[in-house]
Amino acid sequence: MGPGPSCVPPQVYAALARPTIGHLDPRFIAVMDEIKSMLRQVMQTDNQCTMPMSGTGSAGMETCFVNLIEPGDRVLILINGVFGMRMKDVAERLGARVDSLEFEWGRPVEVEAVREKIDQADYRIVAVVHAETSTGVANPAAEIGELLKDRPAIYLVDGVTSLGGMPTRLDQWGVDAFYSGTQKCLSCPPGLAPVSFSEKAVAKLHNRRSKVPNWYLDLSLIVNYWQGARRSYHHTAPINMLYGLHAGLEVILDEGLKTVFARHLAAHRQLIEGLGRLGLEPAVRPECRLPMLNAVRVPPEVDEAAVRSRLLTEHGIEIGAGLGPLAGKIWRIGLMGHTARPENVERVLHALQQAL
Amino acid sequence: MGPGPSCVPPQVYAALARPTIGHLDPRFIAVMDEIKSMLRQVMQTDNQCTMPMSGTGSAGMETCFVNLIEPGDRVLILINGVFGMRMKDVAERLGARVDSLEFEWGRPVEVEAVREKIDQADYRIVAVVHAETSTGVANPAAEIGELLKDRPAIYLVDGVTSLGGMPTRLDQWGVDAFYSGTQKCLSCPPGLAPVSFSEKAVAKLHNRRSKVPNWYLDLSLIVNYWQGARRSYHHTAPINMLYGLHAGLEVILDEGLKTVFARHLAAHRQLIEGLGRLGLEPAVRPECRLPMLNAVRVPPEVDEAAVRSRLLTEHGIEIGAGLGPLAGKIWRIGLMGHTARPENVERVLHALQQAL
Repeated sequence: MGPGPSCVPPQVYAALARPTIGHLDPRFIAVMDEIKSMLRQVMQTDNQCTMPMSGTGSAGMETCFVNLIEPGDRVLILINGVFGMRMKDVAERLGARVDSLEFEWGRPVEVEAVREKIDQADYRIVAVVHAETSTGVANPAAEIGELLKDRPAIYLVDGVTSLGGMPTRLDQWGVDAFYSGTQKCLSCPPGLAPVSFSEKAVAKLHNRRSKVPNWYLDLSLIVNYWQGARRSYHHTAPINMLYGLHAGLEVILDEGLKTVFARHLAAHRQLIEGLGRLGLEPAVRPECRLPMLNAVRVPPEVDEAAVRSRLLTEHGIEIGAGLGPLAGKIWRIGLMGHTARPENVERVLHALQQAL
Repeated sequence: MGPGPSCVPPQVYAALARPTIGHLDPRFIAVMDEIKSMLRQVMQTDNQCTMPMSGTGSAGMETCFVNLIEPGDRVLILINGVFGMRMKDVAERLGARVDSLEFEWGRPVEVEAVREKIDQADYRIVAVVHAETSTGVANPAAEIGELLKDRPAIYLVDGVTSLGGMPTRLDQWGVDAFYSGTQKCLSCPPGLAPVSFSEKAVAKLHNRRSKVPNWYLDLSLIVNYWQGARRSYHHTAPINMLYGLHAGLEVILDEGLKTVFARHLAAHRQLIEGLGRLGLEPAVRPECRLPMLNAVRVPPEVDEAAVRSRLLTEHGIEIGAGLGPLAGKIWRIGLMGHTARPENVERVLHALQQAL
């Protein structure tokens, strides 16, 4: 019940242990095709270029930036937490000229400030974290997308924590490059990074002046394994992890996206209500709270690490610490995917009551 | 029974399905520490900087080059197959000045030619593939290491297919940077890339003038999660894949390295003998044949793809095709890790007899 990995449903565990077959076996190609189709449904996109990368969520971030940045490109990163900071580091290492617009940690990105900033320069990429796992804040991904419509910039969105737990309407919002991870609301173990590129993003990739400076994550090569009639070997795909992702996506789509999102919201409300009874306060204002990642203020008299340690050792429940300026000040309680159930909320509330 | 993934033992499947816990959970840190220690034993090294990267074998290749190359560095790649070619591509994308020394596919790297070449220029890195999976050739990794002793160059070795199936004596051979994959002789599913850096390689990393241009694979950051008293989060480790690797390494060390290597050799000899009875010839000369990857000449009158297809559909056995100049000319029969058992050799021989 921390910031991920989340609880994994039995169907996914069973899938992980299925016999490993070859990465070019026609039966495995069929599994890959179903994964792509299910990912598109969960991401609410028709993007052909939608597939899981063979690495964790951060490899998804690396994939989006390394395929889309060419040295000297102007990039704007909207920052209000650890993962926005990470985007800046990733983009700078790739030779981009990075501007950032920073907001207080625990508060959302302000759309008006973004509008002013993008009017001042010709950015090739504008990037934001949809669900800031480090603070529990939902950023206005749809509204930022609205600003960028009819502009040449690529709109790049981190959906690591949001995908599968709240709406991520890639096509409607005009998202051009999107990445996520499997260990949050997709309820699989960590290890894969679903990504999706719009036609605009694919065009930027194809028009590069130089090769992608990362062979392993070069999407222009990887698509030849994931798409088309004749699949050619790039690297050996992580077969069993992909079985797991296939099962995880099936679980979500069988339940139905609307029901899944409603379940996350219900668990979130149940938690906030219960925390209130314990005298604990959410650290984020109601209008931008994430349902799946709940930042809770640590009361001044409480040893936050001791509480986390007792939860883990005495109750078998992991919750997360604060990061950066929020270290020591908040706990982060995850209600992601299979974790987002009433009985888990009851358990963590009971454990917190005991530990406090 | 192709070029990997190999057969997976039941212990590894069971481990993959164990409950996913947190990447900073003390119980998981203990698993990580045991993995490092077991990897060192299998790699025959004392290198402190030894750990699995969160990607497949090719991510291991990317890791070694991206951490060690700075733009303009002179790099020598010894090429006699697909994976040597891939090294060249990876290194060039990172801005290295790459020289290559090419040898016929199916023949080993010639040590004398390497000696002449390294006397001509001041290479920062010399790289070779130990076991060329694309051809079935064992390259003289020990002898090349001998040449490089007392030279400033970093000695970088691809051990994707050799590790766990034949000796890989990193310290004795003077290997500075080494990477492998889990889906060959370690008998785990694909998804992790064990790497090892000597002190010399770590020093080159620490003396870089610029940041590693790949955040996800930056070893100078990742060591802070894998080493030391206080582990700090870098990316969320692929928990269940690491359970699998832990189990796979235990299986190998319980059997004992010597016994494991002897088993690979025995299965290889049994296969060569059986192929002889079917009138089939190895494509590689005896003195440089890999035990775990057997290249077999396709008789001129035979449709090689039809035979592979029949093996897969009628016998449930996958074998590999030839690549590059060897496409259509060879089959590649894998005897890797858990696959290297007499009953499997019998099965593939029987199936080949039927299909021919």
